[in-house]
Parts: sequence; C-alpha cells; structure tokens
Amino acid sequence: MKVKNPQNSYITMNELVLPNDTNTLNNLMGGRLLHWMDIAAAISAQKHCNRIVVTASVDNVSFHHPIKLGDVITIHAKVSRAFNTSVEVRLDVWAENIPSGAKVKSNDAYYTFVALDENGKTIPVPELVPETEEEKILFEGALRRRQLRLVLGGKMKADDATELKALFTAQ
Amino acid sequence: MKVKNPQNSYITMNELVLPNDTNTLNNLMGGRLLHWMDIAAAISAQKHCNRIVVTASVDNVSFHHPIKLGDVITIHAKVSRAFNTSVEVRLDVWAENIPSGAKVKSNDAYYTFVALDENGKTIPVPELVPETEEEKILFEGALRRRQLRLVLGGKMKADDATELKALFTAQ
Amino acid sequence: MKVKNPQNSYITMNELVLPNDTNTLNNLMGGRLLHWMDIAAAISAQKHCNRIVVTASVDNVSFHHPIKLGDVITIHAKVSRAFNTSVEVRLDVWAENIPSGAKVKSNDAYYTFVALDENGKTIPVPELVPETEEEKILFEGALRRRQLRLVLGGKMKADDATELKALFTAQ
Amino acid sequence: MKVKNPQNSYITMNELVLPNDTNTLNNLMGGRLLHWMDIAAAISAQKHCNRIVVTASVDNVSFHHPIKLGDVITIHAKVSRAFNTSVEVRLDVWAENIPSGAKVKSNDAYYTFVALDENGKTIPVPELVPETEEEKILFEGALRRRQLRLVLGGKMKADDATELKALFTAQ
Amino acid sequence: MKVKNPQNSYITMNELVLPNDTNTLNNLMGGRLLHWMDIAAAISAQKHCNRIVVTASVDNVSFHHPIKLGDVITIHAKVSRAFNTSVEVRLDVWAENIPSGAKVKSNDAYYTFVALDENGKTIPVPELVPETEEEKILFEGALRRRQLRLVLGGKMKADDATELKALFTAQ
Amino acid sequence: MKVKNPQNSYITMNELVLPNDTNTLNNLMGGRLLHWMDIAAAISAQKHCNRIVVTASVDNVSFHHPIKLGDVITIHAKVSRAFNTSVEVRLDVWAENIPSGAKVKSNDAYYTFVALDENGKTIPVPELVPETEEEKILFEGALRRRQLRLVLGGKMKADDATELKALFTAQ
Repeated sequence: MKVKNPQNSYITMNELVLPNDTNTLNNLMGGRLLHWMDIAAAISAQKHCNRIVVTASVDNVSFHHPIKLGDVITIHAKVSRAFNTSVEVRLDVWAENIPSGAKVKSNDAYYTFVALDENGKTIPVPELVPETEEEKILFEGALRRRQLRLVLGGKMKADDATELKALFTAQ
Repeated sequence: MKVKNPQNSYITMNELVLPNDTNTLNNLMGGRLLHWMDIAAAISAQKHCNRIVVTASVDNVSFHHPIKLGDVITIHAKVSRAFNTSVEVRLDVWAENIPSGAKVKSNDAYYTFVALDENGKTIPVPELVPETEEEKILFEGALRRRQLRLVLGGKMKADDATELKALFTAQ
Repeated sequence: MKVKNPQNSYITMNELVLPNDTNTLNNLMGGRLLHWMDIAAAISAQKHCNRIVVTASVDNVSFHHPIKLGDVITIHAKVSRAFNTSVEVRLDVWAENIPSGAKVKSNDAYYTFVALDENGKTIPVPELVPETEEEKILFEGALRRRQLRLVLGGKMKADDATELKALFTAQ
Repeated sequence: MKVKNPQNSYITMNELVLPNDTNTLNNLMGGRLLHWMDIAAAISAQKHCNRIVVTASVDNVSFHHPIKLGDVITIHAKVSRAFNTSVEVRLDVWAENIPSGAKVKSNDAYYTFVALDENGKTIPVPELVPETEEEKILFEGALRRRQLRLVLGGKMKADDATELKALFTAQ
Repeated sequence: MKVKNPQNSYITMNELVLPNDTNTLNNLMGGRLLHWMDIAAAISAQKHCNRIVVTASVDNVSFHHPIKLGDVITIHAKVSRAFNTSVEVRLDVWAENIPSGAKVKSNDAYYTFVALDENGKTIPVPELVPETEEEKILFEGALRRRQLRLVLGGKMKADDATELKALFTAQ
Repeated sequence: MKVKNPQNSYITMNELVLPNDTNTLNNLMGGRLLHWMDIAAAISAQKHCNRIVVTASVDNVSFHHPIKLGDVITIHAKVSRAFNTSVEVRLDVWAENIPSGAKVKSNDAYYTFVALDENGKTIPVPELVPETEEEKILFEGALRRRQLRLVLGGKMKADDATELKALFTAQ
C-alpha cells in the first residue's frame, strides 16, 4: 500500500450560507456547519484511503464568530495522521463576506474516519508521512488527541494516557 | 430570573433516516446526525433560557454503530448545567430499526450554547438546579468538561484546569 | 401476535420552523406541517405494527393559528385503534414561540396507515387495547371516522354507515 | 371585485418522485404528496384571490395506489367554490410511470384557503361562477363539505348541518 | 415505433420561489431555475421517448428579469425535434407575482436529452412530426442549433456547419 | 477600482453526489450539476466584483460522461473576462470515483454575471488582466462568446458580430 502525504488528501470546499442554514438572527446554525465539515472531511479521508469511510468521532469544535446569511464558507481539509484502520482529518474553516471583504477564521477541528471494504468491514489504510513543519506538528498532536478520545470514550484509563498525562503533570 | 431544573428543558426528537442522509453503504452520515443533534440541543437550550441561542461548542462525539437507511433516530436532550451566559446540553441518541425491533444506543454528547438578546448580545441565563442523582452527576462533570473546552481552545492553561488536572494526577 | 396499548406507540417529534417552510408572510405553510405529521404518524404506526407502513388516508385537518418562522412544532402521535391490516393514528400538534413563552394548540388529526410485509402485501397488525379514559374515547370514535372515510371514498353507502348515521338522526 | 370562473385558477404541477420522497419500499410517502398538493392548491387559490393565502383545512384524502420512485406526479388544481373570505380548491392527482406508459389516478382532494391582506387580516375574495356541468357539481358539493368541516371542527351542531343531514336521512 | 407530435410531450410545471432559492437581494438564483428547467425538460423528453433520458446539453440561456421571492414560476416544455437517439426540448419560462398580477417572460431555452435502455445504452427514439406553424419553425431551427452545439463542442468544423454558416455568409 | 487577475477569483468547490441528485439509473441529473456550477461561478464572480451578482446567462454546456451516485464533483471557477458591468466565469468540472481512483473531465462551461449595488442597480466592475497563456486565450475567446450570446438573444445582427463571423468566413 502506497505511503501518502497530507497534500494527497488536501481538499477545499466552498458553500454559500442560504436562508435555511440560519436561525432567526440570520446567523449560520452550528449544526449545518458541522454537516458541511463532515462532508469535506469524508472526501479528504476517502482520498487518503481510496475507500468508503464512515465518521468515527468528532473532537471538540468551538464556534468563535457569528457567520451571516450570504457569507461564503471555505473549508480546508487534509489528513493529519493515519492509524491502523482509521485517519484523523484536520479542518480549517473560514467565513467571508465577499462584498465587504471581511474574512474571519471561524474554527478548526478534527474528524476521525474508519475505512471500510465493500462488505462494511474495517480495512487497513495507507501510512501518512508529514512533510512540512506544520504537518509534523499536526502529526505529533494526533496521538495526544487520540488518547483524549479514548479516555473520554471510556476505552482507556486516564492513567495509561501517557501523552495526555504529560500535559498536566509536566514540571 | 426563575431557577430551573433539567426537566424544564427536556425534549425528544425523532427523525427518519432517508436516502439523502446516507452514504453509498446506506449508513447514516455522521454530519447529518450532528446537524439533527444541534437542532434538538438548541431547542432544549432555548427552553431553559427563553432566548435565542447559538452553538458555542460541541464536545467530543463518537459514533459506535452504523445506523441504517429507514432507521428511526431518537434524540433526548436536556440542559446539564447553566453558566453565566451559556448552557451545556446533554444528548442521548438512540437508533431503532422498528420492523426488526433492534434498538441501539448510538452515542451521547454535549453541546454548549450562548444566549443572545434581540440585538445579538450575550445575556445571563437562569440558574439550573439538578434534581435526580443522574442529573447531579452531569452537573458536576460539566465543570470538568468546561475546563477541557477552555484548555483545548487555548483560553486556559492546563495548569489552571484544577478539576481536569485532578483526573490525571490523583493518587 | 402481542396485544398492544397506545403507550407502546406514543412518540414525540419536535421540528424548528425554518425559512423554507414559510410563505411570504413568514407563516408555516400547511403542506409542510402535513408532511411532518405524516412522518411522526408513520413512526408511531411502525411502532405498533413492527412493520413498514404506508399512508392510506388523512382525515379532515384544520389549521387554527398562524405558526411563525422560528417557532418549535411539537407533534404527539399514538395509535388510537387497530383494524385488520391498518391502524388509525391520533396526532396532537402544538406550536411554541420559546423566547416569548407563547404556546398554542395548532390542531389535531387522524392519519390511517396500512401495514405491509417485505413484498409489499398487506398483513395483519396487533390488536390495540385502550387503557385511559381518553384512549377509550379515541378508540370508540375510530369506528365512526372509519365509516366517514368509507362513505367519502364511495366504498360504503351513507345508509349503511350506522355509527355515523346515528350522529345525524338521534333524537 | 371581478367575478371569476374555475378556469381562471386552473393550474397543473408536475413533480418527479426522487429518493428522498420515498420509504424503504421505494414508494412515495403520503406526507410528501400532501406537501406538493398544498403548494399546487395554494397557487390556484392565489390565482383566484390575487392575494396571499394560507391553508385553513384539508379534507379527507385517500391514497389508493403505491406510487414508485421515478414516477411523475401530475396535480391539477382549480377553485371549486368561493365563500366570503375563503376558497375551496379541488385537486386531481395522477401518477405516471413514463417508460412503461402506466398512468393511474392516485387521488382527489379538497384544500381550503383563507385570503389575507398585507397585514395578515382576512379579506373578501371574488365570487366564483361555475361553467361546465362538472364545475357545477363541484360547486354544489362544496356546501356539504363545508358543513362537514364545521361539524368535525366543532363549530356547527350536526343538527344544523342541513345539507349534510339530508345525505343520511333522505328517504 | 409510433411517430409523435409536440403535443404528446407538452407539459407544464409550476414552482413557488422559496427563501432557499434566492440570493441576499431576494432574487431567484439562476442555478435553481436551471435545475427546475432540467426536471421539466426531462419529463417532457421522457414522454416523447418512453425511456429514461439523461441531459446531454443545455443551450445558451439568458435571464432577463429578476424573479422575486414568492413568485410563481411556470415552465412549458415540449419536444422540438427528435434526432436518432436524442431529442431537443424547447422551454418557455414565465414568472408571475400573483397578488400584484405582474407576469413576465423570464426566458426560453433548449435542453437536449439522450434516451437510454435499462442497461444505460443509447437507444433510438420515435420520430417527431411538427404540426403548427410555430412547431415547424422550432423544428427547422433545431438543425442549426445542433450544428452550433457540435461546433462549440469541437465535434464539427465550423466549415462543415452548413446551416449555421448560412447565417453569417448569406448575401 | 483595483485591476484584478484571474487568480483573485479562482475557487474550488467539492460536492458529493447524494441519492436525491440522481435519476433512476443512479446517474447525476444534469440540472443538479448546473445548479452547483451556478453557485461556484457566483462565488467566483463575487470575488472579482466584491458585489452581489446575478446570473445573466449560461453558455452551451455539454455533459459527456454519466456521473454516478457517491462520486465527488470538483468544480474550478475563475473570471475569464470583465466587461463594463458584467463578468464571464470559466468553469471546469471533474467527477471522481475515489475508491476506484477513476477521474474524468465532465465538462467546461461559461456563466455570465451582472454586478449589482445594494439597490439592485447594475454597477461597474474591476478590469481583469489575464496573466498566463491559458488565461489570455480565455480572455480573447470571451469577446466571441459574447457576440454569440447577443446574436442568439436577438440583441445583435449576425452581420455585426465581426469576431464570430470570422470563424465561418475565414479562408
């Protein structure tokens, strides 16, 4: 199975905020953005795995700025690390009001996907080799985020999450 | 401002998984579920605050079982803790194949919302007083989850997250 | 086949009125509500029958109050009577403007569904035994509503609709 | 206000049955059809009234044949009678599988609409004068259907519904 | 295979312009109209061919008037000429603001469809015989438009497009 | 007003083909693609003009390959030429079946947009200066395509379309 780098799974998605995507203050609803991010991340994960993928988990996502009706959402996604049968995808989301030229970073997030064969069974995925400095930092952090997911999901004891523990106990 | 309990914001939402909600294996796409969960959580948060609310953050969400086309999704939501101008909502999600009678817990999650007045400014929300044993546990845990959100969002140092730190350093 | 009671098929559905659900006065369009009521009623009928069900008929539905953009619709549905291969579902619909606290009964209605096996053939459904006083009244009235459907559909002569006729001729 | 005839409000609507409109047997869901019928009827009522209109009630609707994915739905709508501030619209619905040439009458129904001015107040509508034999029959029946709606809605006593009563008591 | 005339494939489609169909000026977005026109044209092409059809090309379409939220779109479609395995469909699109009575011709266009058998292979279609004067003009023009499509698509040399060439070189 | 180059308006959009986007052969319907292309092109035109834009016309679009359910559509858009108050946008559309690795050019097309101020009046747009060889070819061709649009729209006589005429009469 061919080793891949983050550029192989890098994709961009643009969406226009329409009335049905907003609440009564004309702000984009968070759930709509989570949905678009999932589609962008799934396309990116598919590109790395060349397989059908399903969402396994979504990490903590924060929304910092209200996004308005008529804004253009730009989502950048690329795989940050491959594990045995799963990949973590890093997302960067921007919102732009094009007539006024205002553009803000809305948020970043990590979505994890599992690769499946045509019978719906999990299947190994290609290894990821980070290349740029930023890609290496994302790659390193992925292990810590994975332990956090396992601890929060009750599948690992806090005491065994060595990478994570170091954050809180380092002198 | 009237003190409220979790039952005041308890709501149930049912949705039918339709073809456009699924991938090519006929499984519900994660992003679609995240969208429904956001709407259910927003209704619950509105009921507590009697205000328009906007999604501030979504905690780690894991998807354990594939959910199929035609299944019925049931989402239970209620406020687990109120902070100054925000509330945390606890969600429990079930998937049911009614003809076969199979029903599985799909996942649980926490969404946080900020309350806004009619000009879009943040505004204080009513206090929440938990009543049952389970509600008290959710209430206690909310502080820890809040510190985790702040640490992950870079707004609090790991060292100051006393509730969270205790998890990893307790003897 | 296990006898069931109305609580076995009782479900609640919440929906948020979004811009695409409204007309140019920002009122919910009746057809959108009829669509949501059909999905809620179908889930309820499925729960009673443990079968795929298809809508057979909708009784007279009246809309009393305009429902506004941003309101939350709550639909309660439960089976009111089972016939040989079909069930009648009773729906109660409420509309709530949560920030202002205003909540009105929008309407009630009856939808009838036929149960189908996996080949699309009609198949017998479990018997329904009403328990509360209100459930018994709904159960009794179901026969009258059924005769009305048959008379209106040209499948029964007005003269043979004994239950119905009694309404107009009783001294 | 100009007197109108049914041809002035006659419209045709065609819709293609897409995957999201169907259940797991690939049959059109009743609620989706009720939604399309409401839009068609509203356009027809608007044409008669030259006003914004809102759905006031839907009469008993029966679905006789399963309609399949890929079928074309044709809805014919025209006003059958005008009352003071409302109109009754008659709908005839056909389903056609074009490759096979099979075309069936799916159902007919009556939707009632109220006309509103720009402030959302009810406002008188033009009189309707039926022309063909079929239009005259629909016009006559409208009174009976109106009494049925009022009796079912609890706004008229069965005993006062003279037109309706005649159906059951005629010798 | 039965010869057909344009009336055999004549259909009308009405759509209501809803919020999600519009931009931030409340005007119908062109892409939404192109989508509706494609569905209307596909139904018309199906009626001529009694086959599944797929869009092969769309000719130059111009939008002359802004169409507003709440307007009713009326699309008339009929086959203008049949070629070997394809048909050209002529569309006329009107927009109407019913309360004000304003009705404008929005645009006309030609969509071309290829007929497919159940395995997705192209298959011959019935011949079209135009009847009215207007239908004969559309029929004649179809050859010229076909040459234009082929020249623009790089499948015919401008020099061989005899019908088209005559337009520019005629004395 | 700042002069711009095509890179300033270059955008990429990815969309996943879902069930509701397909016909009964599971192929993407042309109208759905036309709709996505319009949104992508509108975002690109907005980026050039920093204004709200409305679709003025769509040039001949051909669909060469069936696109399947589950494929990922990638649309590249950039402004090819600016006129007084309008811009022409060039679109290149690819379809990719990621698991199998198959990727095909689906089509290319030109959409034209008019820029509007906040009152809906047309307003001048920035000049476009092409930079690469390919951008210069698109820029040159834009004049010819514009004459074709005017001739087809009946706003220019074939005889005056000098750029276009040269195509057919050149020796």
